[in-house]
Amino acid sequence: MEIKLSTQPYKGTRDFYPREMKMRNWFFSKIKKSLEAACFDEYDGPMLESLDLYAAKSGEELAKEQTYNFSDRGGRNLAIRPEMTPTVARMVAAKMGELNYPLKWFCISNMYRYERPQRGRLREFWQLNVDIFGCDTFEADLDVIKSAISLLRAFGADQSMFRVHINNRRFFNDAIAAIAGTDVEGSRRVSKVVDRKNKVPREAYEADLKALGLDDAQIAEIDELYTMSVKEATALCPDSEGARELNALFEALEKTDLLKYCMFDFGIIRGLDYYTGTVFEVFDEAPENNRAMFGGGRYDNLVGLFVKNAKISGVGYGMGDVTLENFLTTHHLVPDLDNDGTKVLVTRFDDVPLEAYNTLVDILQESGVRAALYLGNKKFGKQIDFAAKEHYSHVVIMGGNELAAGEVKIKNLQTREEVTVAHEALGKFFH
Amino acid sequence: MEIKLSTQPYKGTRDFYPREMKMRNWFFSKIKKSLEAACFDEYDGPMLESLDLYAAKSGEELAKEQTYNFSDRGGRNLAIRPEMTPTVARMVAAKMGELNYPLKWFCISNMYRYERPQRGRLREFWQLNVDIFGCDTFEADLDVIKSAISLLRAFGADQSMFRVHINNRRFFNDAIAAIAGTDVEGSRRVSKVVDRKNKVPREAYEADLKALGLDDAQIAEIDELYTMSVKEATALCPDSEGARELNALFEALEKTDLLKYCMFDFGIIRGLDYYTGTVFEVFDEAPENNRAMFGGGRYDNLVGLFVKNAKISGVGYGMGDVTLENFLTTHHLVPDLDNDGTKVLVTRFDDVPLEAYNTLVDILQESGVRAALYLGNKKFGKQIDFAAKEHYSHVVIMGGNELAAGEVKIKNLQTREEVTVAHEALGKFFH
Repeated sequence: MEIKLSTQPYKGTRDFYPREMKMRNWFFSKIKKSLEAACFDEYDGPMLESLDLYAAKSGEELAKEQTYNFSDRGGRNLAIRPEMTPTVARMVAAKMGELNYPLKWFCISNMYRYERPQRGRLREFWQLNVDIFGCDTFEADLDVIKSAISLLRAFGADQSMFRVHINNRRFFNDAIAAIAGTDVEGSRRVSKVVDRKNKVPREAYEADLKALGLDDAQIAEIDELYTMSVKEATALCPDSEGARELNALFEALEKTDLLKYCMFDFGIIRGLDYYTGTVFEVFDEAPENNRAMFGGGRYDNLVGLFVKNAKISGVGYGMGDVTLENFLTTHHLVPDLDNDGTKVLVTRFDDVPLEAYNTLVDILQESGVRAALYLGNKKFGKQIDFAAKEHYSHVVIMGGNELAAGEVKIKNLQTREEVTVAHEALGKFFH
Repeated sequence: MEIKLSTQPYKGTRDFYPREMKMRNWFFSKIKKSLEAACFDEYDGPMLESLDLYAAKSGEELAKEQTYNFSDRGGRNLAIRPEMTPTVARMVAAKMGELNYPLKWFCISNMYRYERPQRGRLREFWQLNVDIFGCDTFEADLDVIKSAISLLRAFGADQSMFRVHINNRRFFNDAIAAIAGTDVEGSRRVSKVVDRKNKVPREAYEADLKALGLDDAQIAEIDELYTMSVKEATALCPDSEGARELNALFEALEKTDLLKYCMFDFGIIRGLDYYTGTVFEVFDEAPENNRAMFGGGRYDNLVGLFVKNAKISGVGYGMGDVTLENFLTTHHLVPDLDNDGTKVLVTRFDDVPLEAYNTLVDILQESGVRAALYLGNKKFGKQIDFAAKEHYSHVVIMGGNELAAGEVKIKNLQTREEVTVAHEALGKFFH
């Protein structure tokens, strides 16, 4: 065989053969069902957007570097969406006055990021985005965190498998100010160092803080925040709006029985300029896998890029398909997807006319059973092999004798049991 | 309000707000269910493919003109998929030896074509692709045509609303040869003229055929084919393999009670070089709309671009979302999607703690009812307005008195009826 064109998918992208597709459909339909149970509405937007959308958010250089972008023949600069937020912000801004707030929206879409493919990071991935727009209070934060917990629980995940680590950006800044006596700009600089705490050697971390004027005692105070409960931590700056939000959220989590899935974590910052209130990350609790799977938080001004002097707040999160699949696999939460219920193959012999077999297929389908006729002219044994490989649960067998007798044989491919059934009883047999 | 960035989606693409998304989800999930009932398996591939894939099929110039294409930083020429066939051909070629034939596959994916947006033609569209690979006989053609009929019937469409027009490319060529005495190349040239029959003035059509050596009598014979039944037409060249296929297919359509949805149509050619056997187009029968909605046919060599000296045949069709939506709307086959069953909003008063309301939401959701807490602090009347606009079927009302009494009021937003129910009966109320 001479290969003429490559059969490989483009680097960092995947082919979804029926088996992989069944997996993707399985987990995304579970997620959809879980979100729809809580009255979230699904939306979607185009794959291509104006590059300006991303440039306005992240700067043109970064937008160009991280996206697949190009110009159309009209000279418009376009990018394949690397994330959903700019699209949904555009959509909300376009109908800002007519939408019925608060919006509870979700979306499951593919995105492209121009990056080096590595474990858990592909160039094409599917991402769930869940957001509530237009509700300023901690109750929306609670609802969003609850939805994340609910969807993991829908897969059978329990509190031993994941934990939601929660912090608040306003509290973070106020706590730093309380410890180091910094002004807004000073707190911002300290935050940038603290955000890198676990990514740089301890000496470098301390040196950077000292360069900003902090002493050993202050550095030790920051360290302590990582070990504190939310009550202890917020006592540090009780008048902080962030502290009040954090306490209200944790109180509500406790009273709604969700606290067992959550913890306060001063280390959750999630970048420095986008989020403005509650921030959270969901951690995989498997020891071999312990890391943040996904996260999100509250941002104050969704539509700011589009409409001057208008504010719509949002709180939400995004979750990638690869991360979720790793989690589900690690915790053995994926059922046997091959075994997906009753599916019947009608096998064939030469001495029976095609329409007689088609009638059987119709009877089965009309009774709500997935059924197909074997297409081809292979021997009976090969037809059974085909059925087994395609995970049919049963085959229907009808030769000339059975046809004459108005009967069929039904063979269960798992148990190998065979029963004889009259044609008119076929529809009811599987119910 | 000063607009800073445009809120319009890119030309030829659409935003799917929850309402539009509900429509798309409604019809594609109906289609999925119909295809899965006949044991078709879903697959998917990447949005980005090597430009070579399309260039090898259609020539580099056409591929570049009709696709969104660009180079990545590694100098690879990429295109956003304008159609699914090259992707699925690549996927089948990649696992050619391990797949379990015949494959019954389908896919619902978005595609991009670089063309002038117009009614029914957008730059971004969703397309259903249905194919059977690896079965050479008319039985696969029958199964594919049956699947197209089944999915339209699943929407409630009947034989007055659509018709499948069927022809056969082999028969077409042999019929032209029988009439005009042409060789293979001669038939091919005549076919190209006949394919344009309804697109050019009659005089030009006749002049083109005469330039190829046909006389008035032969032209009249071709005209007659358009008015003939499949039996009459195939009698013209009874030894043609195409005539035999066509007769076998129509006989099977008759015996499986599908003929009422179908007709023979010598005018169905579907381009000239790709299809090799059965070809068909599904027409909308609405007088104001009478035109082909979608179509497909049989092609001999799916994997030819990838693997030399290997052949896998296919038969299938593709259908766009815009076309389908037009059809469903024209024939009033779209139900009231706003009215989508029981969905309950738990409304709020200040004198009841949040967790008491959250408990009600949990009870409802656990009983399988979609339910949400109103998020925000608007007055009761505004909460009811919100619920009505979002198409909630019921609201749950609980003030301090009801809480103390262990009761809630349930108001049906359609009938305006209100009943009082004990907390412990809430879960069962909607069943």
